[in-house]
Amino acid sequence: MILILKPNPDKEKIEKLMQHIKDRGLSINYSEGARTTILGLLGDTSGIDQADFEVFDIVERVQRVSEPFKQVNRKMHPEDTIIEVAGKKIGAGYFNVFAGPCSVESEQQILEVAERVKAAGASFLRGGAFKPRTSPYSFQGLEADGLKLLLEAKRQTGMPIVTEIMSEKHLDLFADVDIIQLGARNMQNFMLLKELGRSNKPILLKRGLSATMEEFLMAAEYIFAGGNHNVMLCERGIRTFETMIRNNLDISAVPLVKMLTHLPIIIDPSHAAGKREMVAPLSRSAIAAGADGLMIEVHNNPECALCDGAQSLNIPMFDDVMTDIKRRVEFENRELQTRI
Amino acid sequence: MILILKPNPDKEKIEKLMQHIKDRGLSINYSEGARTTILGLLGDTSGIDQADFEVFDIVERVQRVSEPFKQVNRKMHPEDTIIEVAGKKIGAGYFNVFAGPCSVESEQQILEVAERVKAAGASFLRGGAFKPRTSPYSFQGLEADGLKLLLEAKRQTGMPIVTEIMSEKHLDLFADVDIIQLGARNMQNFMLLKELGRSNKPILLKRGLSATMEEFLMAAEYIFAGGNHNVMLCERGIRTFETMIRNNLDISAVPLVKMLTHLPIIIDPSHAAGKREMVAPLSRSAIAAGADGLMIEVHNNPECALCDGAQSLNIPMFDDVMTDIKRRVEFENRELQTRI
Amino acid sequence: MILILKPNPDKEKIEKLMQHIKDRGLSINYSEGARTTILGLLGDTSGIDQADFEVFDIVERVQRVSEPFKQVNRKMHPEDTIIEVAGKKIGAGYFNVFAGPCSVESEQQILEVAERVKAAGASFLRGGAFKPRTSPYSFQGLEADGLKLLLEAKRQTGMPIVTEIMSEKHLDLFADVDIIQLGARNMQNFMLLKELGRSNKPILLKRGLSATMEEFLMAAEYIFAGGNHNVMLCERGIRTFETMIRNNLDISAVPLVKMLTHLPIIIDPSHAAGKREMVAPLSRSAIAAGADGLMIEVHNNPECALCDGAQSLNIPMFDDVMTDIKRRVEFENRELQTRI
Amino acid sequence: MILILKPNPDKEKIEKLMQHIKDRGLSINYSEGARTTILGLLGDTSGIDQADFEVFDIVERVQRVSEPFKQVNRKMHPEDTIIEVAGKKIGAGYFNVFAGPCSVESEQQILEVAERVKAAGASFLRGGAFKPRTSPYSFQGLEADGLKLLLEAKRQTGMPIVTEIMSEKHLDLFADVDIIQLGARNMQNFMLLKELGRSNKPILLKRGLSATMEEFLMAAEYIFAGGNHNVMLCERGIRTFETMIRNNLDISAVPLVKMLTHLPIIIDPSHAAGKREMVAPLSRSAIAAGADGLMIEVHNNPECALCDGAQSLNIPMFDDVMTDIKRRVEFENRELQTRI
Repeated sequence: MILILKPNPDKEKIEKLMQHIKDRGLSINYSEGARTTILGLLGDTSGIDQADFEVFDIVERVQRVSEPFKQVNRKMHPEDTIIEVAGKKIGAGYFNVFAGPCSVESEQQILEVAERVKAAGASFLRGGAFKPRTSPYSFQGLEADGLKLLLEAKRQTGMPIVTEIMSEKHLDLFADVDIIQLGARNMQNFMLLKELGRSNKPILLKRGLSATMEEFLMAAEYIFAGGNHNVMLCERGIRTFETMIRNNLDISAVPLVKMLTHLPIIIDPSHAAGKREMVAPLSRSAIAAGADGLMIEVHNNPECALCDGAQSLNIPMFDDVMTDIKRRVEFENRELQTRI
Repeated sequence: MILILKPNPDKEKIEKLMQHIKDRGLSINYSEGARTTILGLLGDTSGIDQADFEVFDIVERVQRVSEPFKQVNRKMHPEDTIIEVAGKKIGAGYFNVFAGPCSVESEQQILEVAERVKAAGASFLRGGAFKPRTSPYSFQGLEADGLKLLLEAKRQTGMPIVTEIMSEKHLDLFADVDIIQLGARNMQNFMLLKELGRSNKPILLKRGLSATMEEFLMAAEYIFAGGNHNVMLCERGIRTFETMIRNNLDISAVPLVKMLTHLPIIIDPSHAAGKREMVAPLSRSAIAAGADGLMIEVHNNPECALCDGAQSLNIPMFDDVMTDIKRRVEFENRELQTRI
Repeated sequence: MILILKPNPDKEKIEKLMQHIKDRGLSINYSEGARTTILGLLGDTSGIDQADFEVFDIVERVQRVSEPFKQVNRKMHPEDTIIEVAGKKIGAGYFNVFAGPCSVESEQQILEVAERVKAAGASFLRGGAFKPRTSPYSFQGLEADGLKLLLEAKRQTGMPIVTEIMSEKHLDLFADVDIIQLGARNMQNFMLLKELGRSNKPILLKRGLSATMEEFLMAAEYIFAGGNHNVMLCERGIRTFETMIRNNLDISAVPLVKMLTHLPIIIDPSHAAGKREMVAPLSRSAIAAGADGLMIEVHNNPECALCDGAQSLNIPMFDDVMTDIKRRVEFENRELQTRI
Repeated sequence: MILILKPNPDKEKIEKLMQHIKDRGLSINYSEGARTTILGLLGDTSGIDQADFEVFDIVERVQRVSEPFKQVNRKMHPEDTIIEVAGKKIGAGYFNVFAGPCSVESEQQILEVAERVKAAGASFLRGGAFKPRTSPYSFQGLEADGLKLLLEAKRQTGMPIVTEIMSEKHLDLFADVDIIQLGARNMQNFMLLKELGRSNKPILLKRGLSATMEEFLMAAEYIFAGGNHNVMLCERGIRTFETMIRNNLDISAVPLVKMLTHLPIIIDPSHAAGKREMVAPLSRSAIAAGADGLMIEVHNNPECALCDGAQSLNIPMFDDVMTDIKRRVEFENRELQTRI
């Protein structure tokens, strides 16, 4: 962290500021240029806010020079993390497809989808039981009953499940869920992050719609700080000024995540664009960019889906996409995880 | 809601789509132009997702033509809502200042600040007990103990309090809090919104950093849908591409909120810019634009504040700002609510 | 400028990098912390790109610590700049209203508007002759004929004119224009900036829709670098994710500009929102925030305007807004410049 | 285009509005729902602004239902456009790599780079002579001399050249240039667009940093409207809230452009991220998403480059990237255009 001082700072105030810095256990590199004086802070500044020093009236600006995330930082852990779930590996070249409906609607629906996505090569069944909906008047998911249907589908098909949690109060209900998803809108629900940090479940952490990369990794750091190191990241499109598509897939997040952290990164092409026609091209670009997996919405009857039908593939479309994915994962010398 | 069809749509598919629409209890205005065919949906579409129709392959695009929010819509409730809390009115010309520290740190601190902001003309004491922090290694607030200190300050000074809730689990702890704040990062924590909808507490709902106006009002609608109509909105700066300031105060939110809804709107100039020097000019612009109140961070010793010192005013600065605010509220023929 | 090195940098490479820095006439502050090594560059770095050093493979990141703008920097010129045009002062407490139609359409129209806005208290007549339109099929302005009509209106009413230039080729046509406007979409048309730098005309520089504050001031710096110091800035709304309004007025630009530079800042509330109902509240907020003037679209018959009618005030509306503006400018102890 | 009226609109005003619409040669579909009245406009609305109707006080909102672009619209021209330049095809499966330095610096430099990128498989030499720089104090390019060096490199190596134009005044200088590039900052320099529309040169149109897809295609429409149909689009990263990278490559622009228009789309991975390490992964994702080509910065000595060294590949890096590109273009069954 460096402090850039205002021009011609008062000497006494500099003394006072430097004492304040030393009191926090940091040492100082003092640099006086012709126009700018800079104090470089040496020591562990990860728990310090820039605002703590900006309050001093001789300070013009504070800039961080090292990343505030520690345990998820690749500098601290150079090798890729591999997360093992239900007999399959995620990360470091092991490629997984999570597929299933936006929301669980009935036993017949979830069973059919589970069998079909398994047959097509997906390794995990996704499905929403608790649904975060913009409108209180929209279908909110089958909730606890939806979870039961997912677990029944798991029992019958052997497909492990990933589903979203929306409240700390529900954690007990998720005891038999294989991967707990934390949704984009809850990425900075810090109480829930802490609770998930105390659990031992693998967590799929979705990036907030406007979360910076640093905030995204700090959310993962919250889970690590609680003791849970089984975190996979999921980029699902960011909010920009564009209105023709729902969100813009941030493809550069893939190489950026690979540089900054050791965690796996999954791409959700369904939410990214909100248009079914774009699932295939975005999936291709994600594989080529180096993603560790894809999360794809599939419905046995999208025209009657209770939510987000427009972005769901039907079964034959998903079969085609999976055929393409297999060729591409092989081309990249990565290993597709399947349950067939 | 209108459906814009792709060029030369198949007649049979149109029939099928129109039947599907009618099955949902809506009637249809059919319009065939030279290049574009449009189906206008007549009836209540507030619970319907655009995606429900975009899934049909003859549909190119779906556009909403009426707002999805109902109870908070000014069209349904033309007069300004006035919320009465602890003997003071909020909204419709009654102007309130909520002031206090970012976080409660000690009894001495919160008492001193409470007394001083009351004397200066604030009508509510703000202070954080549970603090949403980007880093798990930063000070997280005094939590339940912080709430006790706030209630003690209320007892001794008569200043009602507003403080942030971060979890549904904590609702009981907030029984004696006067206004519950829902923070920007939890604006779409739908479970918490539902819980607050079932309470009878006045809610200060902060806008998410990248929430659209529609999402903001839909969050308020969630609280209304649960039965709680005591909602005030708070704009606190939005996230843009600018890096010189933390957030950009969206001043146009003030007149826009006034057009769209009957709820009061409060401006938080402290979080908006993250710089103490900008609190005064942004406060002035908020009053002039028609805001119903201000939420300002004040600390008795900002240089030692445990969080966000850089944006906190010290007591003499706040005294000056309040002197200015009083003149301006009077100039606008609005009525400043004070407790002196 | 500081260079943050990657962990464990090679000593020889550091030597080579330091030599490279010295060859550019800069000296170095070397700081080696436990985890991070930083090179601070001392000397004039305003002409240096961050990329020049990021190319070295031991460099992780380069951060600028001083502003790249020099002549427009308030640090180099602490007093407010006052620009005198046609007998009126702009800046430093002198408040001007630039009013007139989006585009000049006919002699009758521009004369009527000129007389009416003069009578209401505006000090400059604005009007578009060359119009930047998103569509090639939209009305493109009366071009050179429009300029003639503006000059005729100036002759008859005594109102000096401000109008937009769109090409270096047109500079001769603007010889009798009082203030040349550079539009938002041309803010980084560097050739045009250089040409305006070589002229002696006062320039109204509009901020690009997504220009950072630094880019905005660097555009002004271009004009200064050419020798023309008569630059006033104009904030006209920035592009964000919001879709309910055309742009979001960045009100914090006003205090920020006042901190960073000595140039006057004008607010354009008409373009900022694109809605006529918002012109009055945004104007109020701009005055309160400390702006040096307003640029307002006024049309004698907005329903038949050839462009942007929706944001134009009609004459009676403008009369009301001006009455309000006068009270407010007086309240702020600023001096309204008029030509009546 | 549809007009959504305010609740309970005055009958006479509706009459007047409908007359106004008919006067513009449009017919009307009138739809009166329980809460909303909508007027659908039938006919050619491409030259009409939404603002033209928003000005009527009974109109709440105007929404466009068909795209404002015509000649570049795929609906009007279903087959992919193929542009032939210097014996090579661009678009529709023909894949081209444009490579070369950010700026031309010397004869030796441009000749060496030209030979090397040709040998590696690029089909066009890119290089900047006129450079748009944020700072007036940065190197501005060799300008006309730079163009001469490019043409000399073309003469000696047979590599056709693509280089950026910054002013209408320079058009004559570009007579022997093969493809004229219009830079991101000039994407809405409408005068230059018109001038390029009157020329017969192939144009590489770069997307503005915050240009919507519609604005991007309307810029292309400007060139078409002038009679020049040789336009290729170039996505080069958009501006978002993220600060770790310079821009975010909008990968969804590739499938979106393919849906909306018949023009080729080129991806510039060098500018998109501003980091050399990301050129390879972003190039891969672009090929997989269906782009028609890549534009890559290559320098024979990036550490001494006069601009943007950090994003330039050196020759051996580019050789590796091209080897990878060849495999991938072949995998996609597309045809790499080379000059070896």
